[in-house]
Amino acid sequence: GLIASSTPASSRRRGAALVVRAEGNINTEIRKNEDKVVDSVVVSDLSKPLTAYCRCWRSGTFPLCDGSHVKHNKATGDNVGPLLVKK
Amino acid sequence: GLIASSTPASSRRRGAALVVRAEGNINTEIRKNEDKVVDSVVVSDLSKPLTAYCRCWRSGTFPLCDGSHVKHNKATGDNVGPLLVKK
Ligand code: FES
Ligand code: FES
Repeated sequence: GLIASSTPASSRRRGAALVVRAEGNINTEIRKNEDKVVDSVVVSDLSKPLTAYCRCWRSGTFPLCDGSHVKHNKATGDNVGPLLVKK
Repeated sequence: GLIASSTPASSRRRGAALVVRAEGNINTEIRKNEDKVVDSVVVSDLSKPLTAYCRCWRSGTFPLCDGSHVKHNKATGDNVGPLLVKK
């Protein structure tokens, strides 16, 4: 996708070559009103034997993983995946 | 930093405006030999009352958080932070 407009990015021409610099935000959508997105899991509250937590920042159920990392990895060639918390 | 050379990126001129497209990898360094980086926490193995897990993919102690998200957030304007697992 396009770099979000809030992402610092600069580009300049150096002779014939175009040099593109982009500083990538990892999180482009989730709770951008918060200074820092931190979540807590209290282990004793977990009901299922295994819970997957998102580390790709693309989940529709963040902080839980909903499988969206698969689409992100396919689109970008990345290799991110969730943290599995096991009771 | 610069977009990693493996990152798909394209740019073109449309009239006077330069349109920059970049598909960002979230993980640029960690275990890039793995198809998908998934980690497991077995709750009964946790020794401390609180353990912070990295979600910024910049930690030197991944999958644990070492505070590197602070530098990433400052450099990019991002707002990512860890997942805290509490016994
Ligand atoms: S949806 Fe983000 S890691 Fe699975
Ligand atoms: S070092 Fe990655 S979230 Fe803290």
